[in-house]
Amino acid sequence: LKVFSLNSNPELASAIADNIGVELGKCTVTSFSDGEIQINIEESIRGCDVYVVQSTCEPVNQHIMELLIMIDALKRASARSINIVMPYYGYARQDRKARAREPITAKLIADLLETAGATRVLMLDLHAPQIQGFFNLPIDHLVGVPILSDYFEEKNFNDLVIVSPDHGGVTRARKMADRLKAPIAIIDKRRPRPNVAEVMNIVGNIEGKTAILIDDIIDTAGTITLAANALIENGATDVYACCTHPVLSGPAIERIDNSKIKELVVTNTIPLGEEKKIDKVTQLSVAGLI
Amino acid sequence: LKVFSLNSNPELASAIADNIGVELGKCTVTSFSDGEIQINIEESIRGCDVYVVQSTCEPVNQHIMELLIMIDALKRASARSINIVMPYYGYARQDRKARAREPITAKLIADLLETAGATRVLMLDLHAPQIQGFFNLPIDHLVGVPILSDYFEEKNFNDLVIVSPDHGGVTRARKMADRLKAPIAIIDKRRPRPNVAEVMNIVGNIEGKTAILIDDIIDTAGTITLAANALIENGATDVYACCTHPVLSGPAIERIDNSKIKELVVTNTIPLGEEKKIDKVTQLSVAGLI
Ligand SMILES: Nc1ncnc2c1ncn2[C@@H]1O[C@H](COP(=O)(O)O)[C@@H](O)[C@H]1O
Ligand SMILES: Nc1ncnc2c1ncn2[C@@H]1O[C@H](COP(=O)(O)O)[C@@H](O)[C@H]1O
Repeated sequence: LKVFSLNSNPELASAIADNIGVELGKCTVTSFSDGEIQINIEESIRGCDVYVVQSTCEPVNQHIMELLIMIDALKRASARSINIVMPYYGYARQDRKARAREPITAKLIADLLETAGATRVLMLDLHAPQIQGFFNLPIDHLVGVPILSDYFEEKNFNDLVIVSPDHGGVTRARKMADRLKAPIAIIDKRRPRPNVAEVMNIVGNIEGKTAILIDDIIDTAGTITLAANALIENGATDVYACCTHPVLSGPAIERIDNSKIKELVVTNTIPLGEEKKIDKVTQLSVAGLI
Repeated sequence: LKVFSLNSNPELASAIADNIGVELGKCTVTSFSDGEIQINIEESIRGCDVYVVQSTCEPVNQHIMELLIMIDALKRASARSINIVMPYYGYARQDRKARAREPITAKLIADLLETAGATRVLMLDLHAPQIQGFFNLPIDHLVGVPILSDYFEEKNFNDLVIVSPDHGGVTRARKMADRLKAPIAIIDKRRPRPNVAEVMNIVGNIEGKTAILIDDIIDTAGTITLAANALIENGATDVYACCTHPVLSGPAIERIDNSKIKELVVTNTIPLGEEKKIDKVTQLSVAGLI
């Protein structure tokens, strides 16, 4: 068994290797002068079960190509199995044709991984669990809710409510609520007429309670910060937020810093750049889970 | 018939569309906040023969993913055929295992294009013609030698010799020499012992002649500028250089500017950024050829 890391998430890869008690496999992933990726695998892997750790987070296209080229190299070097550990699955939100002539990039990525030669894929909190069906390979699908719940459990909040920021996330909120023995609430965004501002209607009782917002991905943080502010305006005493995948692109960090969110708890499926490590953000490790 | 351009080479795509007398298809290729590619095809292409113009030059991984996602979108929008016009084929130099555990990325790219749904591919001056065999699709393989030769023919040089900068390029030099009715010479690089500087030995007569160096790709321009200086030192009167694909990465422009090369003639399979448009460089269009 060998574990290799590519460039997206070397800390997580090291932690995973530590956990199973192996050294990270030796390989260098660099670029030629013209930006083409050059991969050197510096130890034999013939007949081995190889695990490759790579999140396809920003720069997403670079990270996808690194992964595909690595799989190609491993296949040609006679690996017995090529197991992809992909804590964050980029392009997961492009999982259906919402409009005419849209691509379904999440399915394309699945096909590319199979074509390159992956034999198994492990993923965490897919944006839609249906993405598992895009593969004709064995898939392991892990969830981040237990890790996030355990963190909040230790805080021993008194009067708690778990809030889904939209309809799509109610199942996830329900799971966390079960673990924390709390009720749920849902933010029900509605646009009364076209070109009229959205109304943040809250379904469920939040008054006087500590609210925990839970989502799978926080990207530009627009939804989650508006939701947090609406919760406070409607009588919640404190608002926490959590998610598995901290994409945190564009204005995200500024929005979170300026919002009513007391603390944002995320996992390390995507590493946080230095500029994203603000006091409000706590990062938990998924290495043990994987 | 519809022609679409992606982001690598819009000028060439426009020129190709002009040449066949159609308008470029309407589509926007942009990025979401987190860097994921978003493609909107803004007109129906159901039942159409679609041509997509994209060179996989720098940023190569971005350009490859744009192309794959566009092919996916076209396939799902019921295009009758999806014809890829790829003037420059990125990763063409990774076409074999030169060392243990190397990937063969040129083959991987071929597989990815087929998996996405391409039905035919047009390419120009592949680094190795064998790459055609990496595809199970119809391939059109065009060559740049006629365009480059015609340019030099008009100069009416008197005593001309066509020079290949290495052994691999002799066939290409021979083709140009036939067109210009000139003899050939070859730069025969040799390292007498390990860790001793290379010797530039010239096979063929170049004394008192105008030399034209020809290659398929000029990347960092190390080989070509050393060859040019060796030709002058050995008695050539003037040295011109030409290639189909001006990758020109890293120190290339500086090296060319400081070299004995009088003029470098390239084509527009790869667009030249403003910083690369120096006086010494002439760019010819392949739009007519395609
Ligand atoms: N990287 C991205 N950033 C923002 N929006 C995206 C991204 N990828 C896909 N989408 C859009 O998000 C929508 C799906 O999100 P959701 O409704 O949360 O499943 C689709 O309509 C996509 O067009
Ligand atoms: N983008 C690149 N830049 C520089 N060298 C490369 C690149 N891609 C592949 N190579 C190397 O170039 C060699 C092939 O070049 P050639 O001998 O000219 O066919 C291989 O050994 C590759 O490792």
